[in-house]
Amino acid sequence: MRAAAQRSASAAVRVGIGDDCAVLTPRSGEELVITTDFSIEDRHFYRAMHPPEAVGHKCLARGLSDVAAMGARPVAAFVSLALPRKLALPQKQQKAKTSWVSRFYAGLLALAEREHVTLAGGDLSESPTLAFADIIVVGAVPKGRALLRSGARPGDILYVTGSLGGAAAELATLDQRQSSSMMEQSNHPHFYPQPRVAAGRALMRRRLATACIDISDGLSTDLLHLCEESHLSAELHAKGIPLASWNGSAVTLEQALHGGDDYELLFTASPRLRMPSTLGGVTVQPIGRMISARKGSRVTLITTGSQGTKRTRLRPQGWQHF
Amino acid sequence: MRAAAQRSASAAVRVGIGDDCAVLTPRSGEELVITTDFSIEDRHFYRAMHPPEAVGHKCLARGLSDVAAMGARPVAAFVSLALPRKLALPQKQQKAKTSWVSRFYAGLLALAEREHVTLAGGDLSESPTLAFADIIVVGAVPKGRALLRSGARPGDILYVTGSLGGAAAELATLDQRQSSSMMEQSNHPHFYPQPRVAAGRALMRRRLATACIDISDGLSTDLLHLCEESHLSAELHAKGIPLASWNGSAVTLEQALHGGDDYELLFTASPRLRMPSTLGGVTVQPIGRMISARKGSRVTLITTGSQGTKRTRLRPQGWQHF
Repeated sequence: MRAAAQRSASAAVRVGIGDDCAVLTPRSGEELVITTDFSIEDRHFYRAMHPPEAVGHKCLARGLSDVAAMGARPVAAFVSLALPRKLALPQKQQKAKTSWVSRFYAGLLALAEREHVTLAGGDLSESPTLAFADIIVVGAVPKGRALLRSGARPGDILYVTGSLGGAAAELATLDQRQSSSMMEQSNHPHFYPQPRVAAGRALMRRRLATACIDISDGLSTDLLHLCEESHLSAELHAKGIPLASWNGSAVTLEQALHGGDDYELLFTASPRLRMPSTLGGVTVQPIGRMISARKGSRVTLITTGSQGTKRTRLRPQGWQHF
Repeated sequence: MRAAAQRSASAAVRVGIGDDCAVLTPRSGEELVITTDFSIEDRHFYRAMHPPEAVGHKCLARGLSDVAAMGARPVAAFVSLALPRKLALPQKQQKAKTSWVSRFYAGLLALAEREHVTLAGGDLSESPTLAFADIIVVGAVPKGRALLRSGARPGDILYVTGSLGGAAAELATLDQRQSSSMMEQSNHPHFYPQPRVAAGRALMRRRLATACIDISDGLSTDLLHLCEESHLSAELHAKGIPLASWNGSAVTLEQALHGGDDYELLFTASPRLRMPSTLGGVTVQPIGRMISARKGSRVTLITTGSQGTKRTRLRPQGWQHF
């Protein structure tokens, strides 16, 4: 089954690295989805803190998460790298495979293999300063079936996969000046986020979702994007939000709402639908509902405490691109 | 005709900017080609020398030239930009449309419109330093018909479009410290290179070429790439190479061989074929032929002077990525 999936995904890349362009052969009845994302040194990662394998992994994970949010099957990836000379070429007495760029590719390719994605091309340039990596991921999805941000309807239930805030909690315990060695992938949500490709595909295949988005910029920011694209507002129930645990205790609600870097899927579904409790091996949790918007989209956070129920407007406080 | 081409190209982009991914609908019987290229400040351009419109134009031209070399019809472009804050946001008392980023997009979009390419997405991030632009262009071509670097056969004639060395000659007359104002596009091969999209499509449609490559890295470098991918060597006739003229006189042979930044197509065709003298509005010139390779690919330059014919090995001296 795994081998078959590998073969069929690879079959879509007819010409890979080594020509002016890669050539992809779409299957009949499929559309292609395409995303691109920058990973920038001293902005998205720090060389002293992040092992190159983790930078490569996360670079690809960002693109895969966007493809997952469309319900698509990832097919091919392209990486454009701009690197200072010393990162691209082995240093004195250093073996080629321990150079920064080799370790970056090792991290990226390990994830690519696991997700059956072919590295089909890219670009390698000298950067006058700092490392810049742009990832492009191409996915395939049956025609007309891609999950968009714009399909939610009033009354739809809001769901989220997995748990939130883990990446922010891990980051908060790190010291930027501390050099990290290579670490195991499991349970390092900040270093090795796991894109929800299987969950996204299950949502598409089983026609469960009316709209979907990935929340790598943070729940508060990306939920507002979904609301805006669907011309709706949303009510979010604080007690429903699945808090990740880090170092044995639950993360804060603030980390779950605004922390970002959680490569989970946020999606909407009809209230008449019976939602499974897991999708593609990951838990699914209802966290609120979509309502009609008056004078523009907004998100209301509903908290319940000893003094009863409180409703407050939730402002987007996730990742700022500028 | 022009309007029809616009409609049909746009029809391929079903969902553009504003979702996790763009969605492209391939036409039945077509393959997609994809390329990505970095344009980096202080490496590929200088802010004091290059107007933002020219940077945007050339950024897209680089991708279009790769698509042209496959014989494909450009469909969609994606731009990932990493910009220092002051380039992305209007400065004090500056109107938004005169900001660097707005002028960059103006240059890029003017070329996109002319070539019927939809800007379908991208990414905008803050750069801690310098400006980085990654262009992704997607093209479409009938299945199995893409022009590859690997299809040349021994005895095939080598052809090149247009004339060479103009960009290098223009660059040589510029002062890096000199600030340039916006300039007209015509006849500025360094600032506003014209990708040979129509010529590439004509080669594909009329089944003229056995192999094709764009020579933006320089003729000496890219011809060797074509030789290597086809497992052949080549003979290049110096007197056949079409020298561009700059400031009223012809460029040097060195500029034409190694200068780079000439967004022309180099292609091979059967010697039995009658090649038109122009393709897609641009001249086509025979410049040599392909021969069998012994011990690896090499290019021999044949010059004829008063002392007879001289054969020298031509080393690749075009653009160095590092």
